[in-house]
Amino acid sequence: MADYLEGMRKIEWAEERMKVLSRIRKIFEEERPLEGIKVGMALHVEAKTAVLVKTLIAGGAEVAITGCNPLTTQDDVAEALRKEGVKCFAKRGMTREEYYNALNRVIDEEPDVIIDDGADLIFLLHKERSEAAGKVIGASEETTTGVKRIKSMEREGILKFPVIAVNDAYTKYLFDNRYGTGQSTWDGILRATNILVAGKTVVVAGYGWCGRGIALRAKGLGARVIVTEVDEIRALEALMDGFEVMPMSEAAKIGDIFITATGNIDVIRREHFLLMKNGAILANAGHFNVEINIEELEELAKNVREVRRYVKEYDLGNKKLYLLAEGRLVNLVAGDGHPIEVMDMSFSNQALAVRYLVENRGKLVNRVYRMPEDLDRFVAKLKLEVEGVKIDELTEKQRRYIEDWRMGT
Amino acid sequence: MADYLEGMRKIEWAEERMKVLSRIRKIFEEERPLEGIKVGMALHVEAKTAVLVKTLIAGGAEVAITGCNPLTTQDDVAEALRKEGVKCFAKRGMTREEYYNALNRVIDEEPDVIIDDGADLIFLLHKERSEAAGKVIGASEETTTGVKRIKSMEREGILKFPVIAVNDAYTKYLFDNRYGTGQSTWDGILRATNILVAGKTVVVAGYGWCGRGIALRAKGLGARVIVTEVDEIRALEALMDGFEVMPMSEAAKIGDIFITATGNIDVIRREHFLLMKNGAILANAGHFNVEINIEELEELAKNVREVRRYVKEYDLGNKKLYLLAEGRLVNLVAGDGHPIEVMDMSFSNQALAVRYLVENRGKLVNRVYRMPEDLDRFVAKLKLEVEGVKIDELTEKQRRYIEDWRMGT
Amino acid sequence: MADYLEGMRKIEWAEERMKVLSRIRKIFEEERPLEGIKVGMALHVEAKTAVLVKTLIAGGAEVAITGCNPLTTQDDVAEALRKEGVKCFAKRGMTREEYYNALNRVIDEEPDVIIDDGADLIFLLHKERSEAAGKVIGASEETTTGVKRIKSMEREGILKFPVIAVNDAYTKYLFDNRYGTGQSTWDGILRATNILVAGKTVVVAGYGWCGRGIALRAKGLGARVIVTEVDEIRALEALMDGFEVMPMSEAAKIGDIFITATGNIDVIRREHFLLMKNGAILANAGHFNVEINIEELEELAKNVREVRRYVKEYDLGNKKLYLLAEGRLVNLVAGDGHPIEVMDMSFSNQALAVRYLVENRGKLVNRVYRMPEDLDRFVAKLKLEVEGVKIDELTEKQRRYIEDWRMGT
Amino acid sequence: MADYLEGMRKIEWAEERMKVLSRIRKIFEEERPLEGIKVGMALHVEAKTAVLVKTLIAGGAEVAITGCNPLTTQDDVAEALRKEGVKCFAKRGMTREEYYNALNRVIDEEPDVIIDDGADLIFLLHKERSEAAGKVIGASEETTTGVKRIKSMEREGILKFPVIAVNDAYTKYLFDNRYGTGQSTWDGILRATNILVAGKTVVVAGYGWCGRGIALRAKGLGARVIVTEVDEIRALEALMDGFEVMPMSEAAKIGDIFITATGNIDVIRREHFLLMKNGAILANAGHFNVEINIEELEELAKNVREVRRYVKEYDLGNKKLYLLAEGRLVNLVAGDGHPIEVMDMSFSNQALAVRYLVENRGKLVNRVYRMPEDLDRFVAKLKLEVEGVKIDELTEKQRRYIEDWRMGT
Repeated sequence: MADYLEGMRKIEWAEERMKVLSRIRKIFEEERPLEGIKVGMALHVEAKTAVLVKTLIAGGAEVAITGCNPLTTQDDVAEALRKEGVKCFAKRGMTREEYYNALNRVIDEEPDVIIDDGADLIFLLHKERSEAAGKVIGASEETTTGVKRIKSMEREGILKFPVIAVNDAYTKYLFDNRYGTGQSTWDGILRATNILVAGKTVVVAGYGWCGRGIALRAKGLGARVIVTEVDEIRALEALMDGFEVMPMSEAAKIGDIFITATGNIDVIRREHFLLMKNGAILANAGHFNVEINIEELEELAKNVREVRRYVKEYDLGNKKLYLLAEGRLVNLVAGDGHPIEVMDMSFSNQALAVRYLVENRGKLVNRVYRMPEDLDRFVAKLKLEVEGVKIDELTEKQRRYIEDWRMGT
Repeated sequence: MADYLEGMRKIEWAEERMKVLSRIRKIFEEERPLEGIKVGMALHVEAKTAVLVKTLIAGGAEVAITGCNPLTTQDDVAEALRKEGVKCFAKRGMTREEYYNALNRVIDEEPDVIIDDGADLIFLLHKERSEAAGKVIGASEETTTGVKRIKSMEREGILKFPVIAVNDAYTKYLFDNRYGTGQSTWDGILRATNILVAGKTVVVAGYGWCGRGIALRAKGLGARVIVTEVDEIRALEALMDGFEVMPMSEAAKIGDIFITATGNIDVIRREHFLLMKNGAILANAGHFNVEINIEELEELAKNVREVRRYVKEYDLGNKKLYLLAEGRLVNLVAGDGHPIEVMDMSFSNQALAVRYLVENRGKLVNRVYRMPEDLDRFVAKLKLEVEGVKIDELTEKQRRYIEDWRMGT
Repeated sequence: MADYLEGMRKIEWAEERMKVLSRIRKIFEEERPLEGIKVGMALHVEAKTAVLVKTLIAGGAEVAITGCNPLTTQDDVAEALRKEGVKCFAKRGMTREEYYNALNRVIDEEPDVIIDDGADLIFLLHKERSEAAGKVIGASEETTTGVKRIKSMEREGILKFPVIAVNDAYTKYLFDNRYGTGQSTWDGILRATNILVAGKTVVVAGYGWCGRGIALRAKGLGARVIVTEVDEIRALEALMDGFEVMPMSEAAKIGDIFITATGNIDVIRREHFLLMKNGAILANAGHFNVEINIEELEELAKNVREVRRYVKEYDLGNKKLYLLAEGRLVNLVAGDGHPIEVMDMSFSNQALAVRYLVENRGKLVNRVYRMPEDLDRFVAKLKLEVEGVKIDELTEKQRRYIEDWRMGT
Repeated sequence: MADYLEGMRKIEWAEERMKVLSRIRKIFEEERPLEGIKVGMALHVEAKTAVLVKTLIAGGAEVAITGCNPLTTQDDVAEALRKEGVKCFAKRGMTREEYYNALNRVIDEEPDVIIDDGADLIFLLHKERSEAAGKVIGASEETTTGVKRIKSMEREGILKFPVIAVNDAYTKYLFDNRYGTGQSTWDGILRATNILVAGKTVVVAGYGWCGRGIALRAKGLGARVIVTEVDEIRALEALMDGFEVMPMSEAAKIGDIFITATGNIDVIRREHFLLMKNGAILANAGHFNVEINIEELEELAKNVREVRRYVKEYDLGNKKLYLLAEGRLVNLVAGDGHPIEVMDMSFSNQALAVRYLVENRGKLVNRVYRMPEDLDRFVAKLKLEVEGVKIDELTEKQRRYIEDWRMGT
């Protein structure tokens, strides 16, 4: 059994560094806005998530939680949550069946509000558990991938409750996706491999917020960076940011390390494996393990073995390729996930989103909402405050100037 | 008289490097979409602008042009345009009266379409020349500052014709404002001063697209960079980008070089001048010369003299401060303005915006329009093409995956 | 007991990536230059070191090895070495007495050649085991710290055998100290803390090759970086590299993370602890655990506890400070040490140094030698070769030009 | 005639920013160490050089000066010097004959001490004017190129007086060559071309101190950077610094901008011109105009014309190549040379070297001396002082620790 004391220490460590969320917890403790509310969550069950859970409970909620990925739960943290009376169904290394069973158990708790990460829980509510969906006041979604899925549902007109796209809050995606994924992806890769980044050729697939974070940090670690994209504007940005841009079919030939962050499927596939150099390393930073086509890699391999923790060697006969973390989120599988400080901001948005859904019960329609900008800015203000950073304020004259089109040359 | 041959050489040099605009010119030459159209322009009259003028003429237009700033015209280029039969009323170093006279002369030509930069021409059409405004099919505006003014007019409900916010095209602001202003502002400062940037403390006021370009290049030149902001989210971004963030009242004490890029007024003012170190250098990269309060600086000064071309020394008794380019756009006054390649993209948008206005004559209402995204992406595609950069395309399977919310863990 | 199979896997993983050393091993296998030679080693006993051990054995040597630090041995690797018949006396977490006992056991094996890291083994040979020192052909030393100690012995005229300062090889210190320490120090800190580096204020004490690597990577991860130095020229370099430079007594007040890399004692001490902010994190990247004065920190603390693996909290009453890895090399204690590829170059130098000592037995005097430049360049050439990088060669005309002072304007 | 008032303003501007040299001037004014000494100089005659001249005069010297390059004199500064009574023989745009005539006129003044830049003056003294060499107390040399030539003379045993290699002072080459050349080379290129650096492929030939400064700034401006080298260790450093490394024959095919900084001849030559892309830009940052083989470029060209100030177009029929500044130092020809602050340090070394030569008259032998380290460090200390930067000092305990080899684990 996992060491729940170690889990508690991890949670405490995170707690002390999640200063924005601590402020919100204090507000929640006083105002108890979630009294009588059941929150059903599917998130990576690790220390920072536990701090969010504790914040919701401080606000009066009951919480049921499971993982949002079969391989990213930290068992000691899960155990610590259970010791504190949280209904936690997560464990590390689940089969697909176990994974969906756990999601179902969260739904069995009849949650009023959903916090999701990747939209598997919301999907399940719509696909198989619509009886429980009726009770749901609303949901909030953490990731680009999840928001994309839910917007697709919205377009089809089948969404059964309002959803707040927490991912699209400025204080989320501009920080979590960029600085969080950027740093933690490399943290995971370094732990798994002990390789030197300087002098390596790194191929980053996707130049969204996650991809640009990964590329930026690769450059900061001394790599030559190549970006692949399908969007012409992002491709141009990558180019002007000093990176090389080319199709994956070209990049495949020269990369030492490949990292996918596209939110799409099959980004690296058979045709690319065939072109790669001996020793190439493959990792994924996108939500699902579909960006690297593992099935095709397995078909090509004459032999597969684990050569180091979280490193699988695929021997293709004429060369060996190395897949990290089974193609799942390398930062969460091989590392501790995002740095604490970015999750502080992201989960502050989550806590406020849940409160907003409860406070606006009945007023929202079944569509995807942006995070309310005042709450978004409230998180930013708190963050500056806890960091001790002061900024300027507009003077009255400046405020007027901005509004006045008459003042020119 | 300015050397029109030198002007022509400058135009030719720019022309060969504006490859996207060249493609559009070829299309214009064939299709003649501007036949019979008079275009009235207020832009910085220098080589790249001249290439835009020639493109419009190739499309069938007649052009009347003046500067959009009293100090940024390159006289040899203006002369070259006149030699080619363009009605050009610009000269370097105009008084305010001369400046508005020249704008009026453009309006006297009864333009059908307006291209503006900072919105002084549009302002004049609304304020004093509404008789001529009636004839205008539409306008396009180049800058953040101009768009801000026109949106203010839109809010007041007084806009007399549709305006395309070319500034807000992705292929404009993401490149021109960031990489263009970033590089050219430093180009201007270095020409004016010959100082070393490495080891200096640079204060950048405003972390919009221009400001972040300037900050990024300052870092790239080895400076310690401080950012001042009024927006909490931008302030946080600056912080996470590795910059220090503080109020101007703190930054004023430690900066060696101050650069404003806020679009606002009075960003550096009396209270800040008083705090500055001896030898501090002040420059502006925003559209108008109001960001640094020059009047207050003059009041404080016991003596003012020009100590180097584009460098004015303000002797405050206990210290000397140095203002570059009279607080006007330092990149255009002390340098050659933006690099050719970014203006290629920006002016390609302008050319396409003019064609769009003409083609949609009568279909648009009197409000501010975003640059149509297909035209924006067309510019991006052409740019990748002329740079010889190839990117990936979505496979059919990927296209379907993006749309499908059912595919999860 | 440690898992020797896991140790073997680690060694194999390193082995495949130490391509320069593999080339040298092939040469050693053919030429057997170390036949009959006993090599006594004190190095961090982890996977890369094991590959060096195997290389020496391939050259004909017998090897006895122990750790060069009480806290950096990886027990699974030590066990794997023992399984392969190597005399390995290292284990993780030794007392000072156990540590010196193990060094003594290496000396008991009567080594002909010494490989040392920090010079504890060489020190012991001179101080207490001079009977064994007589047999020693020569030694090679891995670190700046060790070379400094040995040069001090040389100056005192007491050195009993020649020592090759492997640390001072270009292909060692320019790479291992800079890119190796730079990356692995952050790897260790991130593993221990899960904190975000972006937006943090990082204080790097010492701007030698290690310090500048750490500072460079801190910047690459988005930190604001402050450097402290005692050398005016290095201080100026740090300043021009864009870092802030100030005394530790100033930096102490504003740093979030402090990293020492000076090779000196007491760099962070009582007076500095008193000035620090609540929550400050302290780590050391220098060879010995004396750079941060832990005794003084303990005296100041009202309470000390381990709050996370490798993180000790010192509660000073009014604030808490966090010491990583007990003030020992954070990259080796909390991580896997240097990246494989830099150790490939460093240990290639070690292997060649041992061969050189054996081949030149009797020809060298008892002083400190630089790594012979031809061997140093041989490592560089091999490294370029295994990386597939080609460079230019001087033409005959260029070769002559360089020598000819007559060719000027 | 050049505007000497403009020249004087330029000198004054530089003077106020050369704060280290100002301190030395004060010492010179008091101590008059150069009383009765004639200094013969060959340096780029521009504002910073004029400040050095004035410092030497303040120390009691008489000065005769000419340029060290036919194309880098700023005529207004030369005129200003003449107005102040300095014997100045420089003008911009000399023929080779005029250039050597001017050098001869400096020698005609029978100088006691020589300050040279590139060693043409020292060369002439040895080759044709040995009668005057006899009187020379010693010389100091400013550049890598000049030091190389003089060391070659030293090896041949023909040096007629001692020479101080000012270039090799830490406070010179670490700053002037790296940050100075790095920034000013780009300043020159941007002035000449108005192109965007971001997204361009820049090829830097040579990764010495100048080359790495140029590469660093190219990266800082958003370029993809390729380095060519003949030295395997420098090549590896470039690689680990994140640059691509390849032979010029490969780089020639993909570069947009080529910059030479090798100190060698024929670095870019016929075979490379033939491989280049249409529109490629060529610039040199090395001392002599031999790095790009202009003769071969002219032979290949069907037509040559100046298309912009300092830009020559070579039309090869199937493509056009653009040579900046006639292949001479682009920073000095197209810009104002090095930033003031680095020349402050370099010329402080020059002033102190001259004093040292005079003070040690008769004590030095005819060989190349390093800049005395105490003077070198004196410059560093003054520089930190004028910048207001404080650093740490070793405690007594630390001083002892450094010396003591007995303190280990």
